Amino acid sequence: MNKVIELRSRPVGEPTLSDFNFEETEKPTASDGEILLKTEYVSVDPYLRGRMSDADSYVEPFELDKPISSAIVAKVVSSKNKRFDEGDYITAELDWKEYQLSDGKNVRKIDPNAAPLSANLGILGMTGITAYIGLTEIGQLKEGETLVVSGAAGAVGSVVGQIGKIKGCHVVGIAGSDEKIELLKSKFGFDEGINYKKTEAMGEAIAQASPDGVDVYFDNVAGRISDGVYQNMADFGRIVNCGAIALYNATEMPTGPRVEPMLIKKRVSMQGFIVGDHQDKFTEAVKQLGKWLGEGQLEYSETVVEGFENIPQAFLDLFEGKNKGKMIVKV
Amino acid sequence: MNKVIELRSRPVGEPTLSDFNFEETEKPTASDGEILLKTEYVSVDPYLRGRMSDADSYVEPFELDKPISSAIVAKVVSSKNKRFDEGDYITAELDWKEYQLSDGKNVRKIDPNAAPLSANLGILGMTGITAYIGLTEIGQLKEGETLVVSGAAGAVGSVVGQIGKIKGCHVVGIAGSDEKIELLKSKFGFDEGINYKKTEAMGEAIAQASPDGVDVYFDNVAGRISDGVYQNMADFGRIVNCGAIALYNATEMPTGPRVEPMLIKKRVSMQGFIVGDHQDKFTEAVKQLGKWLGEGQLEYSETVVEGFENIPQAFLDLFEGKNKGKMIVKV
Repeated sequence: MNKVIELRSRPVGEPTLSDFNFEETEKPTASDGEILLKTEYVSVDPYLRGRMSDADSYVEPFELDKPISSAIVAKVVSSKNKRFDEGDYITAELDWKEYQLSDGKNVRKIDPNAAPLSANLGILGMTGITAYIGLTEIGQLKEGETLVVSGAAGAVGSVVGQIGKIKGCHVVGIAGSDEKIELLKSKFGFDEGINYKKTEAMGEAIAQASPDGVDVYFDNVAGRISDGVYQNMADFGRIVNCGAIALYNATEMPTGPRVEPMLIKKRVSMQGFIVGDHQDKFTEAVKQLGKWLGEGQLEYSETVVEGFENIPQAFLDLFEGKNKGKMIVKV
Repeated sequence: MNKVIELRSRPVGEPTLSDFNFEETEKPTASDGEILLKTEYVSVDPYLRGRMSDADSYVEPFELDKPISSAIVAKVVSSKNKRFDEGDYITAELDWKEYQLSDGKNVRKIDPNAAPLSANLGILGMTGITAYIGLTEIGQLKEGETLVVSGAAGAVGSVVGQIGKIKGCHVVGIAGSDEKIELLKSKFGFDEGINYKKTEAMGEAIAQASPDGVDVYFDNVAGRISDGVYQNMADFGRIVNCGAIALYNATEMPTGPRVEPMLIKKRVSMQGFIVGDHQDKFTEAVKQLGKWLGEGQLEYSETVVEGFENIPQAFLDLFEGKNKGKMIVKV
């Protein structure tokens, strides 16, 4: 039999396990032009929360009682498509199914010997690409500047900080436990770390860690953490709005300090950013990330949860900050 | 005698007349290299409110018991400087004094026959330049797009809207009276006008006036008016944060809906903007504005208050929206 995970109900506020259906179907067979794929690694990401709502968004919402999909690494178990051989590994946006068919469109072959398979969902996948393009294209980070990263121990954040160090910047990370802060400094080379759960006055903590002001703020969280950073932007600073996980489960419009006076006074920009808009830069990004990885300049962390049936729980754990680095489910 | 207006106290919240000193001093005499200037027209602008506070800002705060300064058109009444002759007209940032000396630095001669003298404080001065650079450099306005302007009947706003029409855009103006809305449409050629004082549901009104979404929002006000526009941004929209008059008199940190989820979802940018950072574009701006003015493509409004002693009241009236177009005091 073939296990499938579907969206059962649209979450109101924080998602729960009851928002998911666990189904079983027949294992399919490849027809001409198709490949049969066996799911090996599944990426769970905060942005999926947005697709569970039917609010107007930049991606289609998931349909109720249909499989959820995300970035997946899969093995080709049988092929009737000339581009693929049995035993190939690929990555693509695929359904949360143990086995599924594909016509090969938007499927990218990966080299299982270049890096661990799961890296293709992280540092050499969308998360690494997001960090690279967000920091270079949107943030326009320059040597010697001060870079602050929220969600710093997360998949994107930890790469952002390391690229900052490669570029010779003063890098400050914000995360939610002393263990994560220790990891930022010892493993990823951040200069400073702030545990926001132990910090009431975020503004003062950021000021202390960023004495010259913040030139680039790479934001994965929004909310009160960002309020503290906004108070410390340098003139002509750039805010890369990559994520807002602190707000994703809000059931009412979240409010906070208005940003306009700060933006004008400091001539700061905020720029909402979705990596999919920058496909023309993907090749450059993967090439550069692979080079740095090969040179030993980039470290990465994964939290790997085992078992297909644990995909929804792994997704829920993202909102509790239980992951260090990329959250991945090994099937 | 020579009348002078000084800052008496730093306003808390809305400024009042009691924040100003009215003094009299001796009329000065020009020494070698100096010119004696007689003030003819004085520009009063919302940004002066910021300089009355001693909070950290992009310009020096005014000093207590010292004259306030702003953009002024003056006549050279005597000259001991080779660059200037008696009878010349000039514009510069000068003190609120009837007569004052200058060494000629940062003083620009103007042609009294090219346009009315007061236009050099408005459409051919900083307000016109602000509109031009904000819309073209920061807003990157393109033909056929939808442009929304707040403070649309104000000095900057009315020029912004007209440039939008010259560039073939759908232009929506927001202002605070039916009379102003009528003016936007009949005199300045705006396509749509919204009287925010009569509109509870700003978001719905903007949606109705901007059926394709808002590509560029040129914001002079912030606050609840902007909240309504933000709900209607088009994908890849650009917000030019030029002013925030609705917040300038706030005594506590004003709060409102958080913008980050919208910025990300729509990939919108917000960019704080101060015209003084773009001096390299001033010549281009004045040239283009002068050309459009000469071709009859640009109209402008002034509210001219008479009398040197009425400068402070004219400034206070800005916060009540009593001006239509540029607020100017004729001495």
